[in-house]
Amino acid sequence: VADDAQAAARGADLVLLAVPVRATRDVFEALAPALADAPDVLVTDAGSTKADVLAAARALPHPERFVGAHPLAGTERSGPDAADGALFRGRRCLLTPAADARPAAVEECAAVWRAAGAVVELCDAAEHDRLLAFVSHLPHAVAFALAATVSGEARAAGLSGGGFVDTTRIAASDPIMWRDVFLANRDALLDALERLDGELGALRRAVASGDGDALERFIARARSGRERVLAGRP
Amino acid sequence: VADDAQAAARGADLVLLAVPVRATRDVFEALAPALADAPDVLVTDAGSTKADVLAAARALPHPERFVGAHPLAGTERSGPDAADGALFRGRRCLLTPAADARPAAVEECAAVWRAAGAVVELCDAAEHDRLLAFVSHLPHAVAFALAATVSGEARAAGLSGGGFVDTTRIAASDPIMWRDVFLANRDALLDALERLDGELGALRRAVASGDGDALERFIARARSGRERVLAGRP
Repeated sequence: VADDAQAAARGADLVLLAVPVRATRDVFEALAPALADAPDVLVTDAGSTKADVLAAARALPHPERFVGAHPLAGTERSGPDAADGALFRGRRCLLTPAADARPAAVEECAAVWRAAGAVVELCDAAEHDRLLAFVSHLPHAVAFALAATVSGEARAAGLSGGGFVDTTRIAASDPIMWRDVFLANRDALLDALERLDGELGALRRAVASGDGDALERFIARARSGRERVLAGRP
Repeated sequence: VADDAQAAARGADLVLLAVPVRATRDVFEALAPALADAPDVLVTDAGSTKADVLAAARALPHPERFVGAHPLAGTERSGPDAADGALFRGRRCLLTPAADARPAAVEECAAVWRAAGAVVELCDAAEHDRLLAFVSHLPHAVAFALAATVSGEARAAGLSGGGFVDTTRIAASDPIMWRDVFLANRDALLDALERLDGELGALRRAVASGDGDALERFIARARSGRERVLAGRP
């Protein structure tokens, strides 16, 4: 891997890392010799967590030329067959440069993602991780837990409608990628899971006590809340 | 409502009830006078729960001509604008006739749903409710709780990718309809919620302890479990 990575990086103008986030540091260390004499190469990534990737980038010989990026697009599919030239079109891409990142590197990175059709925005890495725990990592955790629960009911096979299909679509995602995201963003995810637990508890109490008004209010709040989260997407 | 229902039922060959399930008994009672002298009218419904609907059907003057039905199709949309002539095509429709239902009524009801393109199967009403709590009611409960949780994080607005969109699509469903489903299938839903709680707890413990192997196994199990649930759909 180290030899391959070095060979790929030598002579490049741009190095864009797309690996499970916990492999980032090893790959950066493997790339370091090839990038030592290349102070103008822009290094970026597409990982789902940013604070850990930013820390790993200190292993680069020119960390000020690294700009972390997270395009908010993707599907449950992975590998070359899942390639889609329109994947980033009209989707947000968050850049999380470190305080010492070169402004020119940030501009170059933004230009790369804009060329792929993305809407670029700057974001603090820690704030990115906290917010993505809610809008992305928690939905994945929930989809995994829901798929595990329903599949435990053997006779349920074949009986699902479109609701189960969609709520668990992302449960078909790559286990290594999501293991790494969950480990890299542990505290923020645990916080999001705790808040979900609170909402599930409120829903369960309303069901258990047969409180129709509370149930109707809960569902209406969820429905309008979803609208607010979706508003403002590019 | 009573007058409208009676007027609609008078002279009909088929009465198909599509109302929030907890309104079923009132509508049946309102229909009773119009159906008293019509022993050949087939009465059916399209509700998401069946044991409660079956019990409510005892209020009909000819309950042996009632056959409960649940087409496993639908979207988060409701009302006349959401009509879709292909909605039931290739989708399963479960019939849950009572023990004293006329075989001819069951056959007629199956023919109606087959004419709409559905794949018809018979099912015990209590078993239906137990299984649907897992494949349908639990995903809705989870989508509501997830939407409520994420929308509690104000700055998350606009940052969601396709994962949140799909996992919460059914959170846009009608509050009255789902309030009624949750109340009508209370015990089975509480059982499903408890099992989900167990899976979420296992996932949370793996995240909290940084157990990468356990996380990877959990996600892989969810992924293959989802495949099993989806297998055998018509």
